[in-house]
Amino acid sequence: MRHFLLELEELQQKLLEMGGLVESSIRESVLTLVERRPRRAENVWSYETRINRLEIEIDELATRLLALQQPIAGDLRFITAAIKINTDLERMGDLAVNIAQRAQDLIEKPPLQIFVDIPELARSVLLSDDEVDRLRTSIYEELIAAMQKDPAMIVQGVDLILISRHLERIADHATNIAEDTLFLVRGVDVRHHAESSV
Amino acid sequence: MRHFLLELEELQQKLLEMGGLVESSIRESVLTLVERRPRRAENVWSYETRINRLEIEIDELATRLLALQQPIAGDLRFITAAIKINTDLERMGDLAVNIAQRAQDLIEKPPLQIFVDIPELARSVLLSDDEVDRLRTSIYEELIAAMQKDPAMIVQGVDLILISRHLERIADHATNIAEDTLFLVRGVDVRHHAESSV
Repeated sequence: MRHFLLELEELQQKLLEMGGLVESSIRESVLTLVERRPRRAENVWSYETRINRLEIEIDELATRLLALQQPIAGDLRFITAAIKINTDLERMGDLAVNIAQRAQDLIEKPPLQIFVDIPELARSVLLSDDEVDRLRTSIYEELIAAMQKDPAMIVQGVDLILISRHLERIADHATNIAEDTLFLVRGVDVRHHAESSV
Repeated sequence: MRHFLLELEELQQKLLEMGGLVESSIRESVLTLVERRPRRAENVWSYETRINRLEIEIDELATRLLALQQPIAGDLRFITAAIKINTDLERMGDLAVNIAQRAQDLIEKPPLQIFVDIPELARSVLLSDDEVDRLRTSIYEELIAAMQKDPAMIVQGVDLILISRHLERIADHATNIAEDTLFLVRGVDVRHHAESSV
Protein backbone atom coordinates (compact mmCIF):
# COMPACT_ATOMS: atom_id res chain seq x y z
CA MET A 1 0.00 0.00 0.00
CA ARG A 2 2.81 2.33 0.91
CA HIS A 3 4.44 1.42 -2.39
CA PHE A 4 1.18 2.25 -4.22
CA LEU A 5 1.03 5.71 -2.65
CA LEU A 6 4.60 6.39 -3.70
CA GLU A 7 3.79 5.35 -7.23
CA LEU A 8 0.70 7.57 -7.31
CA GLU A 9 2.91 10.42 -6.22
CA GLU A 10 5.40 9.54 -8.94
CA LEU A 11 2.56 9.68 -11.49
CA GLN A 12 1.56 13.11 -10.23
CA GLN A 13 5.16 14.35 -10.37
CA LYS A 14 5.62 13.11 -13.91
CA LEU A 15 2.37 14.77 -15.03
CA LEU A 16 3.50 18.07 -13.50
CA GLU A 17 6.88 17.72 -15.20
CA MET A 18 5.08 17.02 -18.50
CA GLY A 19 2.93 20.13 -18.00
CA GLY A 20 6.01 22.24 -17.33
CA LEU A 21 7.81 20.96 -20.44
CA VAL A 22 4.77 21.59 -22.63
CA GLU A 23 4.34 25.10 -21.24
CA SER A 24 8.00 25.90 -21.94
CA SER A 25 7.77 24.44 -25.43
CA ILE A 26 4.72 26.56 -26.30
CA ARG A 27 6.46 29.66 -24.98
CA GLU A 28 9.60 28.95 -27.04
CA SER A 29 7.53 28.33 -30.17
CA VAL A 30 5.74 31.67 -29.84
CA LEU A 31 8.99 33.50 -29.07
CA THR A 32 10.56 31.98 -32.21
CA LEU A 33 7.91 33.88 -34.15
CA VAL A 34 7.70 37.05 -32.12
CA GLU A 35 11.44 37.60 -31.69
CA ARG A 36 12.17 36.22 -35.19
CA ARG A 37 14.92 34.04 -33.76
CA PRO A 38 15.08 30.69 -35.60
CA ARG A 39 17.49 29.22 -33.01
CA ARG A 40 14.71 29.36 -30.41
CA ALA A 41 12.91 26.67 -32.43
CA GLU A 42 15.70 24.26 -31.52
CA ASN A 43 14.56 24.43 -27.91
CA VAL A 44 11.16 23.26 -29.12
CA TRP A 45 12.68 20.20 -30.85
CA SER A 46 14.58 19.32 -27.70
CA TYR A 47 11.48 19.69 -25.50
CA GLU A 48 9.60 17.49 -27.96
CA THR A 49 11.97 14.57 -27.46
CA ARG A 50 11.54 14.76 -23.69
CA ILE A 51 7.77 15.22 -23.95
CA ASN A 52 7.36 12.16 -26.18
CA ARG A 53 9.45 10.02 -23.84
CA LEU A 54 7.58 11.23 -20.78
CA GLU A 55 4.21 10.59 -22.45
CA ILE A 56 5.09 6.91 -22.81
CA GLU A 57 6.45 6.72 -19.25
CA ILE A 58 3.27 8.24 -17.79
CA ASP A 59 1.08 5.96 -19.85
CA GLU A 60 3.02 2.89 -18.80
CA LEU A 61 3.02 3.86 -15.14
CA ALA A 62 -0.73 4.59 -15.16
CA THR A 63 -1.55 1.34 -16.95
CA ARG A 64 0.66 -0.63 -14.56
CA LEU A 65 -1.02 0.96 -11.54
CA LEU A 66 -4.42 0.05 -12.97
CA ALA A 67 -3.31 -3.52 -13.62
CA LEU A 68 -1.39 -4.32 -10.47
CA GLN A 69 -3.04 -2.20 -7.79
CA GLN A 70 -6.68 -2.38 -8.90
CA PRO A 71 -7.36 1.06 -7.45
CA ILE A 72 -10.85 2.24 -6.55
CA ALA A 73 -12.76 5.51 -6.10
CA GLY A 74 -10.59 8.64 -6.03
CA ASP A 75 -7.37 6.83 -6.95
CA LEU A 76 -9.01 5.23 -9.95
CA ARG A 77 -10.42 8.57 -11.06
CA PHE A 78 -6.99 10.16 -10.69
CA ILE A 79 -5.29 7.49 -12.79
CA THR A 80 -7.86 7.60 -15.60
CA ALA A 81 -7.71 11.42 -15.58
CA ALA A 82 -3.90 11.19 -15.76
CA ILE A 83 -4.16 9.04 -18.91
CA LYS A 84 -6.38 11.62 -20.60
CA ILE A 85 -4.46 14.69 -19.45
CA ASN A 86 -1.26 13.05 -20.64
CA THR A 87 -2.74 12.70 -24.14
CA ASP A 88 -3.83 16.35 -24.18
CA LEU A 89 -0.42 17.54 -23.03
CA GLU A 90 1.38 15.50 -25.66
CA ARG A 91 -0.79 17.00 -28.39
CA MET A 92 -0.17 20.50 -27.07
CA GLY A 93 3.53 19.70 -27.43
CA ASP A 94 2.94 18.64 -31.05
CA LEU A 95 1.18 21.94 -31.69
CA ALA A 96 4.16 23.85 -30.30
CA VAL A 97 6.28 21.97 -32.86
CA ASN A 98 3.87 22.98 -35.64
CA ILE A 99 4.03 26.62 -34.52
CA ALA A 100 7.83 26.57 -34.41
CA GLN A 101 8.02 25.04 -37.91
CA ARG A 102 5.70 27.70 -39.35
CA ALA A 103 7.62 30.38 -37.47
CA GLN A 104 10.89 29.23 -39.05
CA ASP A 105 9.34 29.48 -42.53
CA LEU A 106 7.89 32.89 -41.77
CA ILE A 107 11.11 34.37 -40.45
CA GLU A 108 12.73 33.87 -43.86
CA LYS A 109 10.11 36.03 -45.57
CA PRO A 110 9.44 39.77 -45.43
CA PRO A 111 7.43 40.38 -42.27
CA LEU A 112 3.73 41.11 -42.28
CA GLN A 113 3.66 43.91 -39.74
CA ILE A 114 0.46 43.11 -37.94
CA PHE A 115 1.18 40.16 -35.73
CA VAL A 116 1.15 42.17 -32.56
CA ASP A 117 -1.81 40.12 -31.44
CA ILE A 118 -0.18 36.70 -31.71
CA PRO A 119 1.58 36.99 -28.33
CA GLU A 120 -1.68 38.27 -26.90
CA LEU A 121 -3.45 35.22 -28.35
CA ALA A 122 -0.78 32.97 -26.90
CA ARG A 123 -1.25 34.54 -23.49
CA SER A 124 -5.03 34.32 -23.74
CA VAL A 125 -4.69 30.56 -24.17
CA LEU A 126 -4.34 30.58 -20.42
CA LEU A 127 -7.46 32.69 -19.97
CA SER A 128 -10.77 31.70 -21.49
CA ASP A 129 -12.24 29.99 -24.52
CA ASP A 130 -14.38 33.01 -25.40
CA GLU A 131 -11.43 35.38 -25.31
CA VAL A 132 -9.49 33.07 -27.64
CA ASP A 133 -12.46 32.95 -30.04
CA ARG A 134 -12.73 36.74 -30.08
CA LEU A 135 -9.01 37.22 -30.74
CA ARG A 136 -9.02 34.45 -33.30
CA THR A 137 -11.77 36.18 -35.28
CA SER A 138 -10.12 39.59 -35.14
CA ILE A 139 -6.74 38.18 -36.19
CA TYR A 140 -8.41 36.28 -39.03
CA GLU A 141 -10.18 39.38 -40.34
CA GLU A 142 -7.12 41.55 -40.00
CA LEU A 143 -5.00 39.02 -41.90
CA ILE A 144 -7.54 38.54 -44.70
CA ALA A 145 -7.68 42.34 -45.15
CA ALA A 146 -3.87 42.57 -45.21
CA MET A 147 -3.66 39.80 -47.81
CA GLN A 148 -6.31 41.41 -50.00
CA LYS A 149 -4.45 44.71 -49.82
CA ASP A 150 -1.08 43.16 -50.67
CA PRO A 151 -1.22 39.73 -52.35
CA ALA A 152 2.57 39.45 -51.93
CA MET A 153 1.73 38.80 -48.27
CA ILE A 154 -0.61 35.84 -48.92
CA VAL A 155 1.83 33.12 -47.86
CA GLN A 156 2.70 34.96 -44.65
CA GLY A 157 -0.96 35.66 -43.96
CA VAL A 158 -1.95 32.02 -44.37
CA ASP A 159 0.94 30.95 -42.13
CA LEU A 160 -0.19 33.34 -39.41
CA ILE A 161 -3.79 32.16 -39.67
CA LEU A 162 -2.58 28.57 -39.26
CA ILE A 163 -0.46 29.56 -36.25
CA SER A 164 -3.47 31.24 -34.65
CA ARG A 165 -5.44 27.99 -35.22
CA HIS A 166 -2.67 26.00 -33.54
CA LEU A 167 -2.91 28.34 -30.55
CA GLU A 168 -6.65 27.91 -30.51
CA ARG A 169 -6.27 24.13 -30.47
CA ILE A 170 -3.82 24.47 -27.59
CA ALA A 171 -6.55 26.37 -25.76
CA ASP A 172 -9.03 23.56 -26.56
CA HIS A 173 -6.69 21.00 -25.02
CA ALA A 174 -6.29 23.24 -21.96
CA THR A 175 -10.08 23.26 -21.67
CA ASN A 176 -10.15 19.45 -21.86
CA ILE A 177 -7.61 19.28 -19.07
CA ALA A 178 -9.62 21.71 -16.95
CA GLU A 179 -12.75 19.59 -17.49
CA ASP A 180 -10.96 16.37 -16.57
CA THR A 181 -9.57 18.06 -13.48
CA LEU A 182 -13.02 19.31 -12.44
CA PHE A 183 -14.40 15.82 -12.90
CA LEU A 184 -11.56 14.46 -10.82
CA VAL A 185 -12.00 16.93 -7.97
CA ARG A 186 -15.76 17.31 -7.91
CA GLY A 187 -17.00 14.19 -9.68
CA VAL A 188 -19.03 16.41 -12.04
CA ASP A 189 -18.96 15.79 -15.79
CA VAL A 190 -19.05 19.20 -17.51
CA ARG A 191 -18.38 17.95 -21.04
CA HIS A 192 -21.02 18.93 -23.58
CA HIS A 193 -23.05 20.20 -20.60
CA ALA A 194 -23.71 16.56 -19.83
CA GLU A 195 -25.87 17.34 -16.82
CA SER A 196 -28.48 19.14 -18.93
CA SER A 197 -28.60 16.64 -21.79
CA VAL A 198 -29.83 13.70 -19.71
CA MET B 1 -18.11 -12.94 -14.65
CA ARG B 2 -20.75 -13.60 -17.26
CA HIS B 3 -22.11 -10.13 -16.56
CA PHE B 4 -18.64 -8.68 -17.03
CA LEU B 5 -18.28 -10.33 -20.45
CA LEU B 6 -21.65 -8.91 -21.51
CA GLU B 7 -20.56 -5.45 -20.43
CA LEU B 8 -17.26 -5.76 -22.30
CA GLU B 9 -19.28 -6.68 -25.36
CA GLU B 10 -21.55 -3.68 -24.80
CA LEU B 11 -18.45 -1.46 -24.64
CA GLN B 12 -17.22 -2.88 -27.93
CA GLN B 13 -20.64 -2.41 -29.55
CA LYS B 14 -20.85 1.19 -28.41
CA LEU B 15 -17.35 1.92 -29.73
CA LEU B 16 -18.28 0.44 -33.11
CA GLU B 17 -21.48 2.51 -33.14
CA MET B 18 -19.44 5.62 -32.30
CA GLY B 19 -17.02 4.83 -35.15
CA GLY B 20 -19.92 4.44 -37.56
CA LEU B 21 -21.50 7.75 -36.54
CA VAL B 22 -18.20 9.59 -36.86
CA GLU B 23 -17.55 8.09 -40.28
CA SER B 24 -21.02 9.16 -41.47
CA SER B 25 -20.56 12.63 -40.05
CA ILE B 26 -17.23 13.14 -41.83
CA ARG B 27 -18.77 11.93 -45.09
CA GLU B 28 -21.71 14.34 -44.75
CA SER B 29 -19.40 17.25 -43.95
CA VAL B 30 -17.30 16.66 -47.06
CA LEU B 31 -20.41 16.19 -49.22
CA THR B 32 -21.77 19.52 -47.91
CA LEU B 33 -18.75 21.13 -49.53
CA VAL B 34 -18.42 19.02 -52.64
CA GLU B 35 -22.10 18.97 -53.59
CA ARG B 36 -22.60 22.55 -52.33
CA ARG B 37 -25.71 21.49 -50.44
CA PRO B 38 -26.02 23.38 -47.14
CA ARG B 39 -28.83 21.10 -45.91
CA ARG B 40 -26.38 18.22 -45.75
CA ALA B 41 -24.67 20.10 -42.90
CA GLU B 42 -27.76 19.53 -40.79
CA ASN B 43 -27.02 15.81 -40.80
CA VAL B 44 -23.64 16.68 -39.28
CA TRP B 45 -25.28 18.63 -36.44
CA SER B 46 -27.59 15.73 -35.72
CA TYR B 47 -24.72 13.21 -35.73
CA GLU B 48 -22.83 15.49 -33.35
CA THR B 49 -25.55 15.32 -30.70
CA ARG B 50 -25.50 11.53 -30.82
CA ILE B 51 -21.69 11.36 -30.86
CA ASN B 52 -21.38 13.60 -27.80
CA ARG B 53 -23.93 11.55 -25.87
CA LEU B 54 -22.26 8.28 -26.85
CA GLU B 55 -18.83 9.60 -25.86
CA ILE B 56 -20.05 10.13 -22.31
CA GLU B 57 -21.78 6.74 -22.22
CA ILE B 58 -18.64 4.93 -23.36
CA ASP B 59 -16.50 6.80 -20.89
CA GLU B 60 -18.84 6.02 -18.02
CA LEU B 61 -19.12 2.37 -18.96
CA ALA B 62 -15.35 1.99 -19.28
CA THR B 63 -14.69 3.75 -15.97
CA ARG B 64 -17.34 1.66 -14.24
CA LEU B 65 -15.82 -1.56 -15.58
CA LEU B 66 -12.40 -0.47 -14.34
CA ALA B 67 -13.81 0.38 -10.92
CA LEU B 68 -16.11 -2.55 -10.28
CA GLN B 69 -14.54 -5.43 -12.19
CA GLN B 70 -10.85 -4.71 -11.63
CA PRO B 71 -9.97 -6.30 -14.96
CA ILE B 72 -6.51 -7.61 -15.76
CA ALA B 73 -4.30 -8.32 -18.78
CA GLY B 74 -6.13 -8.23 -22.13
CA ASP B 75 -9.41 -6.93 -20.69
CA LEU B 76 -7.64 -4.07 -18.96
CA ARG B 77 -5.78 -3.20 -22.15
CA PHE B 78 -9.03 -3.25 -24.08
CA ILE B 79 -10.78 -0.91 -21.64
CA THR B 80 -7.93 1.62 -21.49
CA ALA B 81 -7.67 1.50 -25.32
CA ALA B 82 -11.44 2.09 -25.50
CA ILE B 83 -11.07 5.25 -23.37
CA LYS B 84 -8.43 6.63 -25.73
CA ILE B 85 -10.13 5.61 -28.97
CA ASN B 86 -13.35 7.16 -27.69
CA THR B 87 -11.55 10.51 -27.24
CA ASP B 88 -10.07 10.35 -30.74
CA LEU B 89 -13.45 9.53 -32.27
CA GLU B 90 -15.17 12.38 -30.48
CA ARG B 91 -12.56 14.83 -31.76
CA MET B 92 -12.95 13.50 -35.30
CA GLY B 93 -16.66 14.28 -34.89
CA ASP B 94 -15.80 17.84 -33.81
CA LEU B 95 -13.64 18.22 -36.92
CA ALA B 96 -16.54 17.11 -39.12
CA VAL B 97 -18.55 19.92 -37.51
CA ASN B 98 -15.76 22.40 -38.28
CA ILE B 99 -15.65 21.24 -41.89
CA ALA B 100 -19.42 21.53 -42.27
CA GLN B 101 -19.40 25.06 -40.79
CA ARG B 102 -16.67 26.20 -43.19
CA ALA B 103 -18.47 24.48 -46.04
CA GLN B 104 -21.67 26.41 -45.29
CA ASP B 105 -19.74 29.70 -45.40
CA LEU B 106 -18.03 28.72 -48.62
CA ILE B 107 -21.19 27.72 -50.42
CA GLU B 108 -22.47 31.29 -50.13
CA LYS B 109 -19.48 32.69 -52.00
CA PRO B 110 -18.43 32.39 -55.66
CA PRO B 111 -16.73 29.02 -56.02
CA LEU B 112 -12.98 28.65 -56.34
CA GLN B 113 -12.91 26.03 -59.09
CA ILE B 114 -10.01 23.92 -57.94
CA PHE B 115 -11.26 21.88 -55.07
CA VAL B 116 -11.34 18.70 -57.06
CA ASP B 117 -8.77 17.28 -54.67
CA ILE B 118 -10.72 17.79 -51.45
CA PRO B 119 -12.79 14.60 -51.90
CA GLU B 120 -9.57 12.83 -52.81
CA LEU B 121 -8.00 14.14 -49.61
CA ALA B 122 -11.04 13.01 -47.64
CA ARG B 123 -10.75 9.55 -49.15
CA SER B 124 -7.01 9.40 -48.50
CA VAL B 125 -7.70 9.95 -44.80
CA LEU B 126 -8.45 6.25 -44.84
CA LEU B 127 -5.20 5.42 -46.61
CA SER B 128 -1.87 6.62 -45.27
CA ASP B 129 -0.29 9.51 -43.44
CA ASP B 130 2.24 10.09 -46.23
CA GLU B 131 -0.45 10.27 -48.88
CA VAL B 132 -2.35 12.85 -46.81
CA ASP B 133 0.83 14.91 -46.41
CA ARG B 134 1.50 14.83 -50.14
CA LEU B 135 -2.06 15.88 -51.03
CA ARG B 136 -2.07 18.49 -48.28
CA THR B 137 1.06 20.12 -49.73
CA SER B 138 -0.21 20.10 -53.30
CA ILE B 139 -3.61 21.52 -52.26
CA TYR B 140 -1.83 24.21 -50.22
CA GLU B 141 0.39 25.26 -53.12
CA GLU B 142 -2.46 25.21 -55.60
CA LEU B 143 -4.60 27.38 -53.33
CA ILE B 144 -1.85 29.90 -52.61
CA ALA B 145 -1.26 30.25 -56.36
CA ALA B 146 -5.00 30.73 -57.01
CA MET B 147 -5.21 33.40 -54.29
CA GLN B 148 -2.18 35.25 -55.64
CA LYS B 149 -3.70 35.18 -59.13
CA ASP B 150 -7.09 36.43 -57.95
CA PRO B 151 -7.13 38.16 -54.54
CA ALA B 152 -10.96 38.14 -54.66
CA MET B 153 -10.60 34.43 -53.89
CA ILE B 154 -8.53 34.87 -50.70
CA VAL B 155 -11.34 34.14 -48.25
CA GLN B 156 -12.36 31.01 -50.14
CA GLY B 157 -8.73 29.92 -50.45
CA VAL B 158 -8.11 30.29 -46.73
CA ASP B 159 -11.31 28.39 -45.95
CA LEU B 160 -10.24 25.53 -48.17
CA ILE B 161 -6.78 25.43 -46.62
CA LEU B 162 -8.40 25.21 -43.19
CA ILE B 163 -10.72 22.43 -44.36
CA SER B 164 -7.74 20.49 -45.69
CA ARG B 165 -6.08 20.90 -42.26
CA HIS B 166 -9.21 19.56 -40.56
CA LEU B 167 -9.04 16.53 -42.83
CA GLU B 168 -5.38 16.09 -42.01
CA ARG B 169 -6.17 16.16 -38.29
CA ILE B 170 -8.87 13.55 -38.85
CA ALA B 171 -6.15 11.41 -40.43
CA ASP B 172 -3.92 12.01 -37.37
CA HIS B 173 -6.67 10.78 -35.06
CA ALA B 174 -7.15 7.74 -37.30
CA THR B 175 -3.43 7.05 -36.90
CA ASN B 176 -3.74 7.31 -33.11
CA ILE B 177 -6.58 4.80 -33.18
CA ALA B 178 -4.56 2.44 -35.36
CA GLU B 179 -1.63 2.70 -32.92
CA ASP B 180 -3.85 2.04 -29.90
CA THR B 181 -5.38 -0.92 -31.70
CA LEU B 182 -1.96 -2.34 -32.57
CA PHE B 183 -0.89 -1.96 -28.94
CA LEU B 184 -4.07 -3.69 -27.88
CA VAL B 185 -3.69 -6.61 -30.26
CA ARG B 186 0.05 -7.10 -30.25
CA GLY B 187 1.14 -5.40 -27.04
CA VAL B 188 3.64 -3.34 -29.05
CA ASP B 189 3.90 0.42 -28.47
CA VAL B 190 4.52 2.04 -31.86
CA ARG B 191 4.08 5.64 -30.73
CA HIS B 192 7.07 7.89 -31.46
CA HIS B 193 8.86 4.68 -32.48
CA ALA B 194 9.08 3.94 -28.78
CA GLU B 195 11.01 0.73 -29.29
CA SER B 196 13.98 2.53 -30.89
CA SER B 197 14.16 5.44 -28.44
CA VAL B 198 14.89 3.33 -25.36
